[in-house]
Amino acid sequence: MLFVESRSAAAGREAWMRRFRVKSAHRDYPVVIGCGAWRALRELPLARYSSLFVLTERVLWKRWGERFLDHSGLDGLRVVFVPGGERSKSLAELERVASALLRGGADRRSLLILFGGGVVGDLGGFVASTFMRGIDCVQVPTTVVAQVDSSVGGKTAVNVGAAKNLVGTFYPPRAVLADPVVLSSLEERVFRSGLYEVVKHAILAGPPLFDELERRIGGLRPDSAPSLERLIAAAVKVKIDVVSRDEREAGGRRVLNLGHTVGHALEAATGYRYFLHGEAVGWGLLAVTRLASRLGWLGGPGDSGRSDGERMARLVERVGPLPPIRHLKPGAVLRLLPRDKKAVGGQVHWVIPERIGKVRIVPDVDRAAVAAVFRELQTR
Amino acid sequence: MLFVESRSAAAGREAWMRRFRVKSAHRDYPVVIGCGAWRALRELPLARYSSLFVLTERVLWKRWGERFLDHSGLDGLRVVFVPGGERSKSLAELERVASALLRGGADRRSLLILFGGGVVGDLGGFVASTFMRGIDCVQVPTTVVAQVDSSVGGKTAVNVGAAKNLVGTFYPPRAVLADPVVLSSLEERVFRSGLYEVVKHAILAGPPLFDELERRIGGLRPDSAPSLERLIAAAVKVKIDVVSRDEREAGGRRVLNLGHTVGHALEAATGYRYFLHGEAVGWGLLAVTRLASRLGWLGGPGDSGRSDGERMARLVERVGPLPPIRHLKPGAVLRLLPRDKKAVGGQVHWVIPERIGKVRIVPDVDRAAVAAVFRELQTR
Repeated sequence: MLFVESRSAAAGREAWMRRFRVKSAHRDYPVVIGCGAWRALRELPLARYSSLFVLTERVLWKRWGERFLDHSGLDGLRVVFVPGGERSKSLAELERVASALLRGGADRRSLLILFGGGVVGDLGGFVASTFMRGIDCVQVPTTVVAQVDSSVGGKTAVNVGAAKNLVGTFYPPRAVLADPVVLSSLEERVFRSGLYEVVKHAILAGPPLFDELERRIGGLRPDSAPSLERLIAAAVKVKIDVVSRDEREAGGRRVLNLGHTVGHALEAATGYRYFLHGEAVGWGLLAVTRLASRLGWLGGPGDSGRSDGERMARLVERVGPLPPIRHLKPGAVLRLLPRDKKAVGGQVHWVIPERIGKVRIVPDVDRAAVAAVFRELQTR
Repeated sequence: MLFVESRSAAAGREAWMRRFRVKSAHRDYPVVIGCGAWRALRELPLARYSSLFVLTERVLWKRWGERFLDHSGLDGLRVVFVPGGERSKSLAELERVASALLRGGADRRSLLILFGGGVVGDLGGFVASTFMRGIDCVQVPTTVVAQVDSSVGGKTAVNVGAAKNLVGTFYPPRAVLADPVVLSSLEERVFRSGLYEVVKHAILAGPPLFDELERRIGGLRPDSAPSLERLIAAAVKVKIDVVSRDEREAGGRRVLNLGHTVGHALEAATGYRYFLHGEAVGWGLLAVTRLASRLGWLGGPGDSGRSDGERMARLVERVGPLPPIRHLKPGAVLRLLPRDKKAVGGQVHWVIPERIGKVRIVPDVDRAAVAAVFRELQTR
């Protein structure tokens, strides 16, 4: 089940590639994962575009730009840089990038390639969806989080004030091309942060991926691309399956918020400066796992009971040390839960694991239980 | 052909309403025109929304808010104000409105009612399409331009720097409700400015509407709502027919740019401060009519030759005096033509009348001819 593999001979050498297809209301699009995935750009109908632009970060482009040009074969690419970091996900940056595109000669038949992590993907996707009311874009994710999660599904957004992702669109890219070789230039902490999202997908997917991740979690390194590509392909497949069934988060897509309700509150309570996103999700996974135990929801047909909760928590912990939360004021964190933008009519939806491979979505949970779990985690 | 009329008894009195349906890729939506059209809000499934917001201008709301609440029967409506004028079509204003909505308790199940002219509609539509990645909106247009044109078709946008409508979306509203009674509070100049768009639609539609407009143009006043409603319904029907066939401006929708290529250049050359939008379109209509004559394109089967051009120009002139263009530098205006955002790969598309009721779209025209026409108009 895990891999749909297809052999492709590119540039004279053999390479393993994983190719999937995402179903979308507007249009389907391919996701290509593997060392050399950028070569798949050559398959796009590039002649239809009046000009080609890439949106990226300066350091990243300096390190990988030449390889990207070599693999993709693109010519005459114009580069627009954005500063790294969450602060670039702003309407001010949208304005700056849109102006730069216009000055650079972009029109409504231009293609925008988003070469970077979640910030470039989220901001750039929003730019693409709104520049002259929408131009085509291709996602070229360069972090673990982006490769297994944010580059797929068409969600774009920027932050407004303290409200994360308050303004954005649903806008599918033309393609997603993920080459795990770029992960080798990630800082260790950024790399590990992305693995929490892989754990989340493994909890959703169940035994085969979860078991494999348990076996391999200790040996994953940023520079072991060949061993990463299978894992990334399996993890992104989870996301693809979910969003292909529910693009606009009306129902099933909400399972992807596993660990994110508490995670978002932690990020917001610390002004998005203390945790990397994946780390906050890591804490969020620990929280909902304990919450599930406390509420008696862990367990069910085919579940080994308490041990599933322990295995999930253990897997999160094996990714690496999470930034301490001992110093955070519980009230400051818990108060932020109802402002979660997934809220409907003021209610928060919680995604609670019932066992490895199964979650349930509930409109709300007992706040005293959440508070108790949070205090437990603080004194862990 | 002109009117699809349906009798509706609302609030104890008889009223004439025109109801049309716009076809859209996402969803179809109704357009209701007539005195009392706001009552149609009662037909929407309002119970599905968690909260109701209206975006409007302060003066407008003070004048018409009570009537709107009375007719619509809405309760618990929260009001967000935007300053009037083109400067409100900005990303800064999007940020301010999105923050106000969040503070006011809006979530992804809120409904946003856009009560105003083109600025409120364009900005508010963009807010609705991006707030939490899209909430429902209803257009309640209060100017002639908005009632016959901009409220229908789902185009939203804000300006970026000097680039008008550079950033926006295609996002159909849930409904468009146009009551011509509000036109009575328009300044005479603003009212007349909208009539140039009615003339544009009449040129596109051909004889029945064009002939009627010729007969009635001299007698149209902001406060003659009962006589305006039929005309507005006929004019908006032209737009509805076009956008129902081509929502995303891939082809046929481009006919709506009649008069707009030169019009946009005039607006841009004067920093959007000298002309009202409709006035610039008025000049644009005069320009393409002369251009068509000069290039020998006016005429064809069923055309009465030169006289069609004269009738079109005469109808534009009868709307009222246009702001003089004698002082404008031709080079400054003509240079702005290729920056028109409808350009594809650097080329401008021109919409040229062949006769009343027929236009042709050409990728470009002889620039010397355009320059000559512009100088003619300046010394008219």
